[in-house]
Amino acid sequence: MNDERHPAEPTDAGGGTGAATGSGSGGGPRKAQAIFDATLDLLADKGYEGLTIEGVAERSGVNKTTIYRWWPSKGALLGAALAGARRLEFPMPDTGSLRGDLEALLDGMVSLLTTPPTADIAVAALGAVTHSAELAEHAGAFFAGRLARERPVFERAVARGELAADADPMLLMDLLAGAAWLRVVFRQVPVEPDFARRTVAVILAGAASRADG
Amino acid sequence: MNDERHPAEPTDAGGGTGAATGSGSGGGPRKAQAIFDATLDLLADKGYEGLTIEGVAERSGVNKTTIYRWWPSKGALLGAALAGARRLEFPMPDTGSLRGDLEALLDGMVSLLTTPPTADIAVAALGAVTHSAELAEHAGAFFAGRLARERPVFERAVARGELAADADPMLLMDLLAGAAWLRVVFRQVPVEPDFARRTVAVILAGAASRADG
Repeated sequence: MNDERHPAEPTDAGGGTGAATGSGSGGGPRKAQAIFDATLDLLADKGYEGLTIEGVAERSGVNKTTIYRWWPSKGALLGAALAGARRLEFPMPDTGSLRGDLEALLDGMVSLLTTPPTADIAVAALGAVTHSAELAEHAGAFFAGRLARERPVFERAVARGELAADADPMLLMDLLAGAAWLRVVFRQVPVEPDFARRTVAVILAGAASRADG
Repeated sequence: MNDERHPAEPTDAGGGTGAATGSGSGGGPRKAQAIFDATLDLLADKGYEGLTIEGVAERSGVNKTTIYRWWPSKGALLGAALAGARRLEFPMPDTGSLRGDLEALLDGMVSLLTTPPTADIAVAALGAVTHSAELAEHAGAFFAGRLARERPVFERAVARGELAADADPMLLMDLLAGAAWLRVVFRQVPVEPDFARRTVAVILAGAASRADG
């Protein structure tokens, strides 16, 4: 135990702003991105059943006892990788309009799910959620964290008068992200160039005929 | 080869209306539901990697060569089970209004994904799509088949003047089914009783402030 810090927030690891680790070779902050990358690569290659902490240790070059010290199970490790891997991030937009922000968010999600080599990794990591109750819990935390980062998009829209104050950001993100998942992963049909524009148009203005709406 | 019929439409198997098989014990139509049930149960128990045609044969009591004759791989078998298993079906609504039909469709999907014991099976079967390109192809066919059955909901709505003639049923179903998947499987948060009502309200009328919309 040459690293005294408690891994309370291991997913912040690797952010580059933390203090240097004592040895520079521990499994803590400085190696977290390498561990996350190895975790996601191994998952994409071998599936959730084939993902082992030993395999991650071998691929990342980090001692397995070090990995176990931070993430005691592969569910915990994959949960942390989902939340903390830079490869699965995309920027939060601030285009000046709700329509622009939602289109940018949806384009970002579609791109994450369709652009190699990240696409296989993102689909495998999210699909693995269905495999274990432990991992599902981590996925819940991942989506909660992402929603916290998405909320400003909706707060700015309310402030601009584009959205009612009681609009439900979680529901709107369910519609947006859900449409991307259905179209790309489940339907396996090409995503048209105007998919984001049309999807956001329905979310903002509705599909009902004006006479009915 | 004591069953001369070609398995061109094996997913219609077990519909109960077909002609009796010669022997009554083959892997064809009459046993298809037992094979599909065994496939889905095994998947839920052991994951996609643990799913084998031998295991399905053992659990269903159908000879494995018979299963192989109809479905030459586990991807093909699971694809057929997705499309043909009665346990994954829910009725197509015809409530008299687009709003009522969409709420019924969404309630049906949420129920499929949350009500034991079917929930684990449905989530595992759909999640397994992310595991193999072959299965993904079958999933695409499954969703295409489901969309074909959902289209009348939208055709009736157009005829009633509730929906513009150029509305895109695939996109509307992406939003509806995607919201259910995101909320239930990815977020792991309880689905409120009014989830379907609120989700369909956004899809029909939009989330934008009236001043903006």
